Amino acid sequence: MSNDDATRIRATYEVRADPAEIDAVARALATEQSVEMPVTAITDQRVLDEVVGRVDEIVATGPDRFLVTLGLAAETVGATTSAADTAQLLNMLFGNCSLLDEVRLVDVELPEPLLAAFDGPRHGIAGLRRLCGAEGRPLSCTALKPQGLPAEALAALCERFARAGLDVIKDDHGIADQAAAPFARRVEACQAAVARANAATGRTVRYAPSLVGPPSVLARNAAVARDLGVQIVLVAPSLIGPPAFRELLDEHLGGMAVLAHPAFAGAARVDPPLLLGAIYRLLGADATIFPNVGGRFSYSAERCAAIAERARRPWGHLAGCMPVPAGGMTTDRVPELRAAYGDDTMLLIGGALLAAGDGLDREAARFVAAVARTGE
Amino acid sequence: MSNDDATRIRATYEVRADPAEIDAVARALATEQSVEMPVTAITDQRVLDEVVGRVDEIVATGPDRFLVTLGLAAETVGATTSAADTAQLLNMLFGNCSLLDEVRLVDVELPEPLLAAFDGPRHGIAGLRRLCGAEGRPLSCTALKPQGLPAEALAALCERFARAGLDVIKDDHGIADQAAAPFARRVEACQAAVARANAATGRTVRYAPSLVGPPSVLARNAAVARDLGVQIVLVAPSLIGPPAFRELLDEHLGGMAVLAHPAFAGAARVDPPLLLGAIYRLLGADATIFPNVGGRFSYSAERCAAIAERARRPWGHLAGCMPVPAGGMTTDRVPELRAAYGDDTMLLIGGALLAAGDGLDREAARFVAAVARTGE
Repeated sequence: MSNDDATRIRATYEVRADPAEIDAVARALATEQSVEMPVTAITDQRVLDEVVGRVDEIVATGPDRFLVTLGLAAETVGATTSAADTAQLLNMLFGNCSLLDEVRLVDVELPEPLLAAFDGPRHGIAGLRRLCGAEGRPLSCTALKPQGLPAEALAALCERFARAGLDVIKDDHGIADQAAAPFARRVEACQAAVARANAATGRTVRYAPSLVGPPSVLARNAAVARDLGVQIVLVAPSLIGPPAFRELLDEHLGGMAVLAHPAFAGAARVDPPLLLGAIYRLLGADATIFPNVGGRFSYSAERCAAIAERARRPWGHLAGCMPVPAGGMTTDRVPELRAAYGDDTMLLIGGALLAAGDGLDREAARFVAAVARTGE
Repeated sequence: MSNDDATRIRATYEVRADPAEIDAVARALATEQSVEMPVTAITDQRVLDEVVGRVDEIVATGPDRFLVTLGLAAETVGATTSAADTAQLLNMLFGNCSLLDEVRLVDVELPEPLLAAFDGPRHGIAGLRRLCGAEGRPLSCTALKPQGLPAEALAALCERFARAGLDVIKDDHGIADQAAAPFARRVEACQAAVARANAATGRTVRYAPSLVGPPSVLARNAAVARDLGVQIVLVAPSLIGPPAFRELLDEHLGGMAVLAHPAFAGAARVDPPLLLGAIYRLLGADATIFPNVGGRFSYSAERCAAIAERARRPWGHLAGCMPVPAGGMTTDRVPELRAAYGDDTMLLIGGALLAAGDGLDREAARFVAAVARTGE
């Protein structure tokens, strides 16, 4: 099989099927994700040899559960207009079969020539550390909320967090370009607030505004942010669409780092470690936010560990992507989170700092101190 | 509640929860999909009154199953740069809660001012009929495949289908801009093939090429197609991303009609009638393809009927969207499909025509005749 490595994508699906039917089901899946027609009706020998999907492996994992690995022709995602089209890659991996309730996409291996077409994270873990002047410890992060506050109120909150020493202060992912706090005014106010705090403290706290919208708005707002000196942005790849996400990074971010948010990831159908860990990284996320175990979401410890592992594991020329466990975290859990994820991690605490009310500054400082503490 | 109609989106979710906890779960969902922080920590009265999500209704549908309807503030999706941002609408409807396994989005009602910001289908059912010169019967459609064939072979197939009298001949959704049949060459060849057939038969058969890729490629290829006289294109909204889909229609299609394809819709998490029937229509699809009952996919008859109903039901100023049942259909099923869906339907048969091999022309003509037959 090694002679085919350069021409085939290996895609693995978890499939529910009767054991007596799994061979036929796997062949049907290979057809569905390639030529999508009866193979017997194909007369072109090159198509039969080089384009039709191939069943490489079937492994039983339960009485009616299997891991089916297909070899999909890399040429089916190659485009003449770009080295490897994101939309078409998703189409061949999980286009039609996303409509099959009994099929989930759980793993993907790209052949080297295809992987080479993706830049992956421009900054990665090391770059994020440099941007924040933070070495030898996790990074800390919080969120500005609630949406509905005027830009000036969000900026005042931003300044308090910046003075407390958080590394990254991001917009809540629900903050867009609403009338209450229009994008340009908000980003200008928050960026100025962080600059004032940094001037006073000597730190390099970063404000990360949220970019959301159709492609033209993303490009326009990216330019606004860049012109205001923003170094990190928050983007939800599944919300704006993975193809638009990659093009935003390639064409419009001008070197800003990217914090990926999992909104609309519908991650129950694509295995979360693959989507949030590997695919977002492939497309360029420098850090990836995910709902941590024991918070408001139902992800297991194993799933969370797998997301972090996929984000950081060696993968060709791609830089590591920083895992960002989040979703109902508290300062008291920082030691546990550090033990679980190690220090190449960004810890995100939002609501719990805001819930401190008048004690917000003290609680934010306590979070910063917990992240800075060594030797535990 | 009617005084709030103009300011709130009604979003309904199917939620699995312990009956003793459903009230708290519903409140948490309303918070997650709006301010995403402890409500008790919010001090701004306007935010509490006008921005925080509201639980409007909880209806038990089973021992541990509920329909929860939230009132979400329309202002949270309003953008200053565009009347209603698609990405932000999805964010507020199903951003974070897409990550909750126990929650599915099943229905959405937009307040009139927000609905007014969407153009919906430009052609709709009546417009598609005019484009194809087809009244008083369903439209017929087939697909060019397999991918991997050269442009000339696909064009030859296209001409055979056009001479048989199919109304719409679309690219298979897997056909993109591969080296085997680059977009511009393929579209030119297929468009010419259809023109030759139309000149010979006097019909108005339409070729619908597939547009796939990142936003800049979509815009470029749309221009190529338009310049070649194409009148209908095939686009998968979930694959290119709903925000990019809507912007493509608004800015780049120049009046071409749109056939929506369900690839990557991951429709298990958003109820298919809502996503494929209502949301694609809201964003502008003139016709929506879905996997019909009894084909290669596992959709039920009820689900299929609901998709068609959502696509066609009266909805403010929006034109109807033509349902396109597909996925393993055969000519023998045409009478049954007409009985089930009525005549404001496009019937799509792909593989079954190709499987006829040398009998393709005869089988295609039989399909066209079955669709044209009246009085059954």
